[in-house]
Amino acid sequence: MDSESFKECGKTVIDYIANYMDNIRDRPVLSTVEPGYLYKLTPSEAPVKGEHWKTVLADVENVIMPGITHWNSPQFHAFFPTANSYPAIVGDMLCNGIGCIGFSWITSPACTELEVQVMNWFGKILDLPKEFLNESEGPGGGVLQGSASEATLVCLLAAKDRATKRMKTFNPSMEDGEIKAKLVAYTSDQSNSSVEKAGLLGSMPMRLLETDKDGRMTGPILAKAIAEDLAKGLIPCYVVATLGTTGTCAFDCLETLGPICNENNIWLHVDAAYAGAAFILPEYRHLMAGVQYADSFDVNLHKWLLVNFDCSAMWVKNATYLVDAFNVDRVYLKHSYQSQDPQIPDYRHWQIPLGRRFRSLKMWFVLRLYGVEGLQAHIRKQMNLAELFGKLVEQDPRFEIVMPVTMGLVCFRLKGNNILTKHLYERLMNSGQIYLVTANVRSQLVIRFVVCSRLTEEADVRFAWNEIQRQADAVSGTVAVVVVATAADASAEVTTDVWPDKMEHHVAVKSLTQG
Amino acid sequence: MDSESFKECGKTVIDYIANYMDNIRDRPVLSTVEPGYLYKLTPSEAPVKGEHWKTVLADVENVIMPGITHWNSPQFHAFFPTANSYPAIVGDMLCNGIGCIGFSWITSPACTELEVQVMNWFGKILDLPKEFLNESEGPGGGVLQGSASEATLVCLLAAKDRATKRMKTFNPSMEDGEIKAKLVAYTSDQSNSSVEKAGLLGSMPMRLLETDKDGRMTGPILAKAIAEDLAKGLIPCYVVATLGTTGTCAFDCLETLGPICNENNIWLHVDAAYAGAAFILPEYRHLMAGVQYADSFDVNLHKWLLVNFDCSAMWVKNATYLVDAFNVDRVYLKHSYQSQDPQIPDYRHWQIPLGRRFRSLKMWFVLRLYGVEGLQAHIRKQMNLAELFGKLVEQDPRFEIVMPVTMGLVCFRLKGNNILTKHLYERLMNSGQIYLVTANVRSQLVIRFVVCSRLTEEADVRFAWNEIQRQADAVSGTVAVVVVATAADASAEVTTDVWPDKMEHHVAVKSLTQG
Repeated sequence: MDSESFKECGKTVIDYIANYMDNIRDRPVLSTVEPGYLYKLTPSEAPVKGEHWKTVLADVENVIMPGITHWNSPQFHAFFPTANSYPAIVGDMLCNGIGCIGFSWITSPACTELEVQVMNWFGKILDLPKEFLNESEGPGGGVLQGSASEATLVCLLAAKDRATKRMKTFNPSMEDGEIKAKLVAYTSDQSNSSVEKAGLLGSMPMRLLETDKDGRMTGPILAKAIAEDLAKGLIPCYVVATLGTTGTCAFDCLETLGPICNENNIWLHVDAAYAGAAFILPEYRHLMAGVQYADSFDVNLHKWLLVNFDCSAMWVKNATYLVDAFNVDRVYLKHSYQSQDPQIPDYRHWQIPLGRRFRSLKMWFVLRLYGVEGLQAHIRKQMNLAELFGKLVEQDPRFEIVMPVTMGLVCFRLKGNNILTKHLYERLMNSGQIYLVTANVRSQLVIRFVVCSRLTEEADVRFAWNEIQRQADAVSGTVAVVVVATAADASAEVTTDVWPDKMEHHVAVKSLTQG
Repeated sequence: MDSESFKECGKTVIDYIANYMDNIRDRPVLSTVEPGYLYKLTPSEAPVKGEHWKTVLADVENVIMPGITHWNSPQFHAFFPTANSYPAIVGDMLCNGIGCIGFSWITSPACTELEVQVMNWFGKILDLPKEFLNESEGPGGGVLQGSASEATLVCLLAAKDRATKRMKTFNPSMEDGEIKAKLVAYTSDQSNSSVEKAGLLGSMPMRLLETDKDGRMTGPILAKAIAEDLAKGLIPCYVVATLGTTGTCAFDCLETLGPICNENNIWLHVDAAYAGAAFILPEYRHLMAGVQYADSFDVNLHKWLLVNFDCSAMWVKNATYLVDAFNVDRVYLKHSYQSQDPQIPDYRHWQIPLGRRFRSLKMWFVLRLYGVEGLQAHIRKQMNLAELFGKLVEQDPRFEIVMPVTMGLVCFRLKGNNILTKHLYERLMNSGQIYLVTANVRSQLVIRFVVCSRLTEEADVRFAWNEIQRQADAVSGTVAVVVVATAADASAEVTTDVWPDKMEHHVAVKSLTQG
């Protein structure tokens, strides 16, 4: 493909993307293909001769689009949002066009320095404690990770290294392996699966502590677990507190967790992957009270802040712990500007991979083209839409809201036995007009409604609610006995609140008249 | 930014990228800015009001470009290539436009299935053993990782889990931590820094074994190390063999390493990050003889195969080891098509993060628009250019080639004391016409010349060689005494072949007449 063809093809794709966004409501949000659909539509070997781009672009519509679940559809209300905006797309095009790999300052100074600068900007927008910022005195700083998962793991590994070295100073005769085998980490049972996975990957037992009735991990809960482990001769090392849990958007109590972590030399990592975005609004910053105790803090711009995946902003109070844990240098990586100056970090020591994209470009485009007020307006609008949805739910006596509406999330259910909500959910999934996922809250199955898409408007929220009511009408008139093909004892399913592991997609529903 | 503005802005950026590529020779390959340059050119806070895209695009040229080291410049001969092609850029634009997160099949079936399919395609293009492919019977399969670093770490963690479980079956009373503390990994002292880092991150000592005179790790070298460790009561767990080392593009001997790993239940990972691309040419496949012994194999399409970063293809013979090691599920991640079918993998269990980009789109565009023959032509052309450069070096009696020219890499030096080559290198860097990096080969400092850019032509190779000869003319006539400002004893620097850690950029060179 020469430059002229690229211009033609690239501009066609620009139009295609704009057209996709403008008409996304015409596409069913949830893909309805059967597993293996794509293998039937594509050859089993790559072409020997190059094809024309028009052929491939036609296949995007014919082969790819049927298998897309449209995360940017206004009818997508599952998980949490994944950001998508025109400024981010344009910024990322330039990232690819320039195509530099910024693993050290010299390999493209702009790649390092723009990242430092936008992390300074963003830290100030969130009103984070100054010590986290590169521009402040001291060893703190920010870096873009690919995901909150990686941020959690990176900090776990730094915490592990820090704790191991610290223990060695007190017990020089102890072997590293011996110390590492005693380290233990804590998080709540409501934290994201990636936190538990970080423990698994980092070979550190991650205790999932039972939360209080509001889904929060608090100081007393943590203190009890630490005391138990100290009594066993274990070494508490790492705590991941969540601001905005995946299930119900609960906020762990940093103000009581923080002092305990600090007193016990435990690394406190704050996972604010989704809800951290709300701290760009001053009126929500009280939810991060206690952040000054944290050693590290992470929020995904690729969730709620309009920067396309991947773009996860992580700050640490002391970056030397990262560099100490991760630094493996070779002659071919050395360059003459190497320094420990937090203004000129060699970011390869702050992350797992060696290579790194110029991610800050898309963040820079988003911050500049929206401006702080534009981003604030986006967050406020989405919160208002969630509030609207919550009010609609409250007006229907068949439903209940299980946790207070928080950020863009509403957790609701049909009153009564879980099977009703499960049946409703099945009907919604089979109907495929909107996409939602479920969660368990204190043994209750709830459906999570999240305002996800940048394109969602009031009419879309009302559309979703109408669809939910319509499907609920069908549920209310029946006793739903869900016969799960793979479950030996179907009746057992009626009382369980856990989503069966291998449930078949097309669940047979036996309709009976309810009294 | 609305759709109309996006169309205007996006098309302007398309033109900008094409223009950048067409005129890249006009820009100095190596950025000449001073550290901190960008902080002076940008405000210290994000704008409150959104700005116009034209303002930001102007800043791309004025603020960003001066700080870019142009990896795609035909004068870039450092490290290994980073891929950049128009088809990949277009494919990635669509990835952003669609903006789905494919952490499970249901969240976009196309995202999972296209990845399976292009990994099948690519595995066949490389003629990998069938067991690695998803389409074959059995638990093997391919996945796209972000980087070879992550592939090495992911396989280390799977190997760790496999070895721990295996030891437990023989020694049920042993604690997991006790077993893990005894595990040990091996690689050569020529492997990429990311391999050593994987050991660090995965808490497994990574022994860097001394290679033979050709820079290769062989069976006998490994066998000796294993025997030593077994005698100490350690548990050999993981071997990373490199096909195409970073320093000199040496190939470890899989045929002798493989049987040793298999006999000792050691996971054999093959890191073919750069040179694996050459296996699309049948005449180079002899260099991966013994690959059938491997448990996992990785090659970066984002290096030599024209797919923009990040796109690292990794295959495993038995994906259940990954899933067993990484699987942490929650109710909100469950969906009805979950299965262990390698045709429908839930790729989140094959990688570190939960989220994942639709990376296979850009790979699909590259494979289809170039075709196998187009990619083969690209690799052959770059090898021919390296061969040309090697011949030019050989014709100048002042120079020597230290290792045979391999793939796109030529390792050369000025004959005699290392200080001459170091001086030459300093002059080249100060001149900034071409970008190269150095390596150490058996105590000799060498300069690595790599054909990197897709745009490099014969004239560019001759340009580079002329510049090297010109700078060498200056070196030959002098005795170079490098006075390193930060070194207390300057004379010690004269004999060292190790790049000083904190060498100042502007090295003072004292010119003396040489006898």
